[in-house]
Amino acid sequence: MLSKSQIKTITSLKQKKYRLQQGLFVAEGVKTINELLASQFSLQQLYTTNSFKIDANLETVVSEKELKKISFLKTPNTALAIFKIPEPKAINTNQLLVALDNVRDPGNLGTIIRLCDWFGITDLVCNIETVDCYNPKVVQATMGSITRVNVSYLNLTDFLKTTHMPIFGAFMEGDNIYKSQLPNKGILVLGNEANGISREIEQVITTKISIPRFGQLQSTESLNVATAAAILLSEFRRSER
Amino acid sequence: MLSKSQIKTITSLKQKKYRLQQGLFVAEGVKTINELLASQFSLQQLYTTNSFKIDANLETVVSEKELKKISFLKTPNTALAIFKIPEPKAINTNQLLVALDNVRDPGNLGTIIRLCDWFGITDLVCNIETVDCYNPKVVQATMGSITRVNVSYLNLTDFLKTTHMPIFGAFMEGDNIYKSQLPNKGILVLGNEANGISREIEQVITTKISIPRFGQLQSTESLNVATAAAILLSEFRRSER
Repeated sequence: MLSKSQIKTITSLKQKKYRLQQGLFVAEGVKTINELLASQFSLQQLYTTNSFKIDANLETVVSEKELKKISFLKTPNTALAIFKIPEPKAINTNQLLVALDNVRDPGNLGTIIRLCDWFGITDLVCNIETVDCYNPKVVQATMGSITRVNVSYLNLTDFLKTTHMPIFGAFMEGDNIYKSQLPNKGILVLGNEANGISREIEQVITTKISIPRFGQLQSTESLNVATAAAILLSEFRRSER
Repeated sequence: MLSKSQIKTITSLKQKKYRLQQGLFVAEGVKTINELLASQFSLQQLYTTNSFKIDANLETVVSEKELKKISFLKTPNTALAIFKIPEPKAINTNQLLVALDNVRDPGNLGTIIRLCDWFGITDLVCNIETVDCYNPKVVQATMGSITRVNVSYLNLTDFLKTTHMPIFGAFMEGDNIYKSQLPNKGILVLGNEANGISREIEQVITTKISIPRFGQLQSTESLNVATAAAILLSEFRRSER
């Protein structure tokens, strides 16, 4: 039986402020929870309608009705877990990295984390304004990939200024990605959904790159940032397979 | 002032059954509506809080409160329009086509239509079970691309059997897409979100293709179908730019 105060504590984790205050985040769905349990993430408490047969102190079996009260999903799954937000890990800059400048949509960030995982990108760096990777919608959209991609929030301008790596930025008007020499070490910067890469970050970009358009689209149209990430990462990696 | 019966008629268009019965669909948002108005789609009626200065018979100025009653969006835009579903157009098979086998998520279909538009694919063919392209969520997600991509619903097995084009199917285990010779005329088949391409369609595929995985993902993991579409279409087109 869940107390009112327990319910309040869990649902408060929808907000970044309370996640930071408590150092906790929510994951829903058996698949995602199992991936987190198998990883280095530390479980605080699991709420489930079917026992996972784990340490009884860490598990609370709840009714469907109770799960509905704490779930952030329209159609709740059978389990919801609270995990501890891990300590930030060191960033390995001697490889291909992805950097996000103001990506705001949780679904886009989740998809980008999943893409990083697919393409073997272990470090994703984000400016402070980028949506929090422990937002429940992001965790959901990563489908477990959050366990394999190290997401760091930092002053992106300073970070980029101090690296000695080539910095590629996705722009509407840049070098044709299909004809560019793309290194296997470097940083790919992707910008905000509506405004692209900010002026400040633009100044530290080494090379502007673009995905050529083939249809009759107007030049103001752009691809969604997650879709663009898919195509760009594929281009960076294709010569390695 | 909208009558109860008008509101009921409009909101019924959320369901495919009523869209087919009435031959009408809903588009929301000024940008999408303007693209549809500039295209060959025929406007039935526009409901807007700010006049578009079009033929007064085709426009109803409504209050925000009224718009909220007819909108399918959580945060309604300032305009909602009813357009006529156009007559099916002939399919031009002498080019690169995309075929969908049971894609069910409206957001995925919308993204794929937008990608077809970006990569100059004018014909998208779908089996009957694929989500309807006039579903309001699909129309929304296409961001106007629905005006430039001809979407046809048909018996996909029969269609594929009678074409004389190479048929490529996206599978978990297939030829490495980065090392495949991809023609500029052919059909790219994408399958259902959970189950991939059906057995029936698999039998008519000429070449199975795959996007290689780089990370530590388990072999059961796959990319989302819209993300895979982005990477595959980019590969098919890249030699042309």
